[in-house]
Amino acid sequence: MKMIRFLIAIVFIGGFIACERPAEKVALPEYAMAIHGGAGVIKAELMSAEQDSLYRVSLLEALLAGEAILKSGGSSLDAVTAAITILEDNPLFNAGRGAVFNADGFIEHDASIMYGPDKNAGAVGAVRNIKNPILAARKVMEVSPHVFLVREGAEQFAVLQGLQIVDPSWFMVSKQREKYEKTKATQLEREFPLGDKHGTVGAVALDSKGNLAAGTSTGGMHFKHQGRLGDSPVIGAGTWADSASCAISATGHGEYFIRYGVAQDIASRIKYLGQSLEEATNQVVMQELVKLDAGGGVIALDKYGNISMPFNTAGMFRASVKAGEKPFVGLYASDSLQVQ
Amino acid sequence: MKMIRFLIAIVFIGGFIACERPAEKVALPEYAMAIHGGAGVIKAELMSAEQDSLYRVSLLEALLAGEAILKSGGSSLDAVTAAITILEDNPLFNAGRGAVFNADGFIEHDASIMYGPDKNAGAVGAVRNIKNPILAARKVMEVSPHVFLVREGAEQFAVLQGLQIVDPSWFMVSKQREKYEKTKATQLEREFPLGDKHGTVGAVALDSKGNLAAGTSTGGMHFKHQGRLGDSPVIGAGTWADSASCAISATGHGEYFIRYGVAQDIASRIKYLGQSLEEATNQVVMQELVKLDAGGGVIALDKYGNISMPFNTAGMFRASVKAGEKPFVGLYASDSLQVQ
Repeated sequence: MKMIRFLIAIVFIGGFIACERPAEKVALPEYAMAIHGGAGVIKAELMSAEQDSLYRVSLLEALLAGEAILKSGGSSLDAVTAAITILEDNPLFNAGRGAVFNADGFIEHDASIMYGPDKNAGAVGAVRNIKNPILAARKVMEVSPHVFLVREGAEQFAVLQGLQIVDPSWFMVSKQREKYEKTKATQLEREFPLGDKHGTVGAVALDSKGNLAAGTSTGGMHFKHQGRLGDSPVIGAGTWADSASCAISATGHGEYFIRYGVAQDIASRIKYLGQSLEEATNQVVMQELVKLDAGGGVIALDKYGNISMPFNTAGMFRASVKAGEKPFVGLYASDSLQVQ
Repeated sequence: MKMIRFLIAIVFIGGFIACERPAEKVALPEYAMAIHGGAGVIKAELMSAEQDSLYRVSLLEALLAGEAILKSGGSSLDAVTAAITILEDNPLFNAGRGAVFNADGFIEHDASIMYGPDKNAGAVGAVRNIKNPILAARKVMEVSPHVFLVREGAEQFAVLQGLQIVDPSWFMVSKQREKYEKTKATQLEREFPLGDKHGTVGAVALDSKGNLAAGTSTGGMHFKHQGRLGDSPVIGAGTWADSASCAISATGHGEYFIRYGVAQDIASRIKYLGQSLEEATNQVVMQELVKLDAGGGVIALDKYGNISMPFNTAGMFRASVKAGEKPFVGLYASDSLQVQ
C-alpha cells in the first residue's frame, strides 16, 4: 500500500505539481483554495524520500477533492468540508485518525467551520468518538441553534444527526501511541520540541459565487490535559471567514492563537487598517507571533482569490490552487520562492 | 433574610448610589471598575420594589468588594475575581448558584478571565461541579500551560488545584427549576422571550498600576443543549483585555457574539480605527448587533478609566465606580441619563 502511494506520488510530482507558487493575479479567479496539514519541525533532512512523497500526495489528494467541487460550481463550504474530511481520515496528520494522544492516553478532537457570507459558524470540542469532527462542526452550524458544542453534548448531537461514530481506538495509530508511551515513561512533557507537539488540518476556499469559507480540525497538542481546547474550535482564533475580509485557518501553539485572536486579528487588519492579505498575515505570523515565540502559521484567502500561507516554523504542510492554474504543494520553506 | 437585604437596600439607595452616571473625566482615575449581571427583558414594570432593591444592593455588594481591593492598591485581576465570585454565589444571577437549567435538567457553567498587560487568559466550559467557575478560569490562566479546559478535564484540574467542589444540586434554585419544568412540559423552547433566556455576570477593572482585567461567568442559555458553550468562555467573544485598547465583558445571545467576535472587535476598532471606547462599543452593540437582532450588551473600560456600558435590550444589571466618585448602579435604560 505504501509502495503504491509512493509510486503514485512520483507520477504526480513529476508532471503535476508546480514547485513554486505562481504570482498572484489581479483578475478574480473563478475559484481558489488552500489547505494545510500543520506547521512545525518539518525539515527535508528529517524526512525520507518516501515520507516526503506521501505527504505531498496526501495534500494533493485533499486539495483536488476540494477543487473538484469548486470546479463543478459547488460551494466553498462543501470544498472545505471535503478536503478536511480526507485529511482527518489520513493517519499522517494530527486530526481524526492519527491524532495525538492526550496525557491520559486517549484522543480528543476539536473542529470548527465558518461561512463568509453570513458569518455562520459551528464548532465541536473535546469529542472522542465522532469519526469526522469537521462534519459535526458543520452540522452544529447548519442544524443546531448553537455554535459551539463540547464533549457528550456534541457527541449526542452527532448521533442524532446520523454522523458516523467509531470506537475511540479507531483514531489511534502506532506512531502517536509510541510518542505517548515515550513521553509518559520519561515523564518529560517536553520530550518533544514544542513545534513537534501540535499539528492541525484546515482549508479555506472561494467559490464561483464569490463566497468564502474556512475550516479547521485537530487532535490538539501532544500530551495535552484532558478537556483542553486549542485555537482550532475557537471562532476568531483558529478559524474565521467573513466575505468582507478573508478566510483563515490557523495551526500552531493554540494557547497563543487564542490569546491574540489570530484569525480575527488578520481579518480586522484588512477591514480596519486596509492592509492586504499578505501584509496582514505576515505581520501577525512573522512579527507578532514571533515576538511571543508562538510557533505556527496560517492559510489565508481573500475575496479576490489572493492566497497567503506564512509560517514561522521550519515548515508547514500546505497546498493551494486557483482556477486555471497548476496546484502548488509545499512542505518546507524552500518549497516556495516567495518570502513566506 | 430577604427583609434584611431589603432594608439594607433602602439605606444604601437613599444615601449612596448616584442615580446618573457621572460624566467621563479626562484625568486618569486612580482606579475604575464596572460589573454586569446580564442583559435582557429587565423592565421596571416587571419588578416589585423589593426585587428592584435586591438587584441593586447585590450589584453594589459585588462592586464594592472589587473596589475595596482596588482602593487598597490591589490588582484589577483580584478585583474582577472578587466581584464575579460574589455574583456567582448570589442566586439572583445566571452564574454559579442560580444558573439556568439546560434541556437535560442540569446546569453547566462557563467562565473566562483575561489580563491586559500580557493578554494572559484562562477559561473553563461546561463544568458541572466547580462552586466558582471564575476561580477555575483564573487557575487555568495562572497554573496550567493551557488556556481553555472543558468538562471533566476542567473539573479534575479544579480538584487538583484545591478549588471547592459542590454537588450539582447546590447550583439549583427553585426559580430556575420552575422555568425548566415549564419549558419542558410545554415542549416550547421559545416559551420565554429570547431576551429572558440568557444572563451572565462579568466585571472589568483598571487598577492603580494602570493594568486592565476582564472576566465573565455564566450558566448560559436557558434550556440550552448539553455541552453548549456561549460567548462567555470564548476569549475574543465574551471576554477581552488588552492594555493597548480596553477590557470587555459581554452578555447576550452568545451565538452571535461568537460569530462576530464582539469583545475583540470592539478592541480592534479602538486599536486600528482609533475609535473611542464609547464609539466602538456603541457601534458594535447598538448598530452591528441590532442589525442581527442579537440582544445583549457589554461593559467596557479603557486604560484612561473611561467606562461604557451600552445594551440593546430593555435593561442590563450593571454598576460602576471610579476613584473618588460615588458608585453608579442601574437596571433599566432610565437609570442613566446618558445615551446607552
